[in-house]
Amino acid sequence: MNNPVNVGILHPGAMGVSVAASIKASGARVHWVSAGRSQLSCERAKSQELQTHESLASLCAACTYVVSVCPPHAAEDQAQAVMQAGFQGVYLDANAISPQRAQRIASLCADAGVDMVDGGIIGGPAWQPDSTILALSGALAVGCAELCGKGNLVTQVVGEEIGKASALKMCFAAWTKGQTAMLSAVVGAAESLGVRSELEAIWDRGNNEQSSAHHKRLSNVTAKAWRFAGEMEEIAETFSAAGMPGGFHEAAAAIYQRMAGFKDDAERPGIDAVLSALLKNTDEK
Amino acid sequence: MNNPVNVGILHPGAMGVSVAASIKASGARVHWVSAGRSQLSCERAKSQELQTHESLASLCAACTYVVSVCPPHAAEDQAQAVMQAGFQGVYLDANAISPQRAQRIASLCADAGVDMVDGGIIGGPAWQPDSTILALSGALAVGCAELCGKGNLVTQVVGEEIGKASALKMCFAAWTKGQTAMLSAVVGAAESLGVRSELEAIWDRGNNEQSSAHHKRLSNVTAKAWRFAGEMEEIAETFSAAGMPGGFHEAAAAIYQRMAGFKDDAERPGIDAVLSALLKNTDEK
Repeated sequence: MNNPVNVGILHPGAMGVSVAASIKASGARVHWVSAGRSQLSCERAKSQELQTHESLASLCAACTYVVSVCPPHAAEDQAQAVMQAGFQGVYLDANAISPQRAQRIASLCADAGVDMVDGGIIGGPAWQPDSTILALSGALAVGCAELCGKGNLVTQVVGEEIGKASALKMCFAAWTKGQTAMLSAVVGAAESLGVRSELEAIWDRGNNEQSSAHHKRLSNVTAKAWRFAGEMEEIAETFSAAGMPGGFHEAAAAIYQRMAGFKDDAERPGIDAVLSALLKNTDEK
Repeated sequence: MNNPVNVGILHPGAMGVSVAASIKASGARVHWVSAGRSQLSCERAKSQELQTHESLASLCAACTYVVSVCPPHAAEDQAQAVMQAGFQGVYLDANAISPQRAQRIASLCADAGVDMVDGGIIGGPAWQPDSTILALSGALAVGCAELCGKGNLVTQVVGEEIGKASALKMCFAAWTKGQTAMLSAVVGAAESLGVRSELEAIWDRGNNEQSSAHHKRLSNVTAKAWRFAGEMEEIAETFSAAGMPGGFHEAAAAIYQRMAGFKDDAERPGIDAVLSALLKNTDEK
């Protein structure tokens, strides 16, 4: 067997650690940087026996690939930091960002002599086979697909153009997360207007589980809402640049922002708590 | 049997004539004004044996009730015209308008000494039993429910407050028509970004009919899109006044506006024609 490929994961969050596990299935050795990360990230890194580095520079010196899995607003700074740390391998950005931002990251990688691969993860953390897709595009996408696709992650190469994988991710999330945000606004408006019970009675005429399914959908999204706001803003920019109205997802960002306070809650809130969060802040558009 | 109640319908469009049919089931005599209406409206009025008037003043003199079923943007002018024609009965506005607009109409009715009932129709033209709901609110809502609810229309009184019936209609339509508009934007963005086949392949992984169901949903809405744009604007205003983001439905209005050209098409357009309409106009936000 050849020497293992060394891959850095930034960072082993709930999603990142599942990506690390899938990369490990290829025989690669996966590294991380412990500085500034949470106790939970330490535990996740340990659970996958990731190689610990104290600094980004140390990780960059050790790795042929660096994979970025972070909130959208941090993606560009993350790439910049990796380039500044002297990285000289292949940089895979797997974040929920607009194609334009992916192209900007490719550009700053190119300035540092680094090849960038554009990625987008569709689905939740990849702990079940065939449930999470990593879309990839760029000249080196096929190599990344081989590296990442031996575990639970399903890889899909969507061409050589930087931005295509991000575009696919944006469009997919636009529909799933956009719908949930719109539903939140509808239920919130009905509550505010004093017609929620009447609306839910009509929804339940066709299917008497409909309203409780809607409530569950809202409750289930609350814990993740804090990071969806930024993703919705990326989608709004993606749509505007593609000639479609950005307003759906600007509004969705405002909705998820209102739910951001549920981030660290141990239990999923009931519908009354969700409505209270939606209706408390009426400062946004 | 008592003398029949006389009810004016403005106007017997596709929806209005089905409302007229439901009102006739109560034993009422239904009237309409032929001036300025289309040949199709004439045929519809004839099919229900409506009493024809040449002028609005003549209809107003003959009727105890006037029922307004028209596009949202015309609702206020319609009410004004009826008051100016000297109407002295009960005015039922059954249009897809914001609660604020319903209250403005109630106000201009009150200035003319006329009682207004707020209504909102949920569902398509009422040709099947139990499929179309007429929500009603206002002091005289119960009387209108008796007048309208003997045929296929299911009537639902949502209290005495003007605006409640409209609020219920707005919230219901916000979800159904808002979703279809958002789906149109997602498919349009994917097409514009060159990832539509990839997106649709992912949609079809779980359910291999999903993409064709989406195409059908888009094609089916095109003929009605011209009048949905105004309704979406009413919903955006309703949401903003209720403290929810108006952006979802401002964007939805822009989407339906782009599809407005399909109004008179005899056949439903295929997905390529829908996409072409969505992508041709990129002037709106």
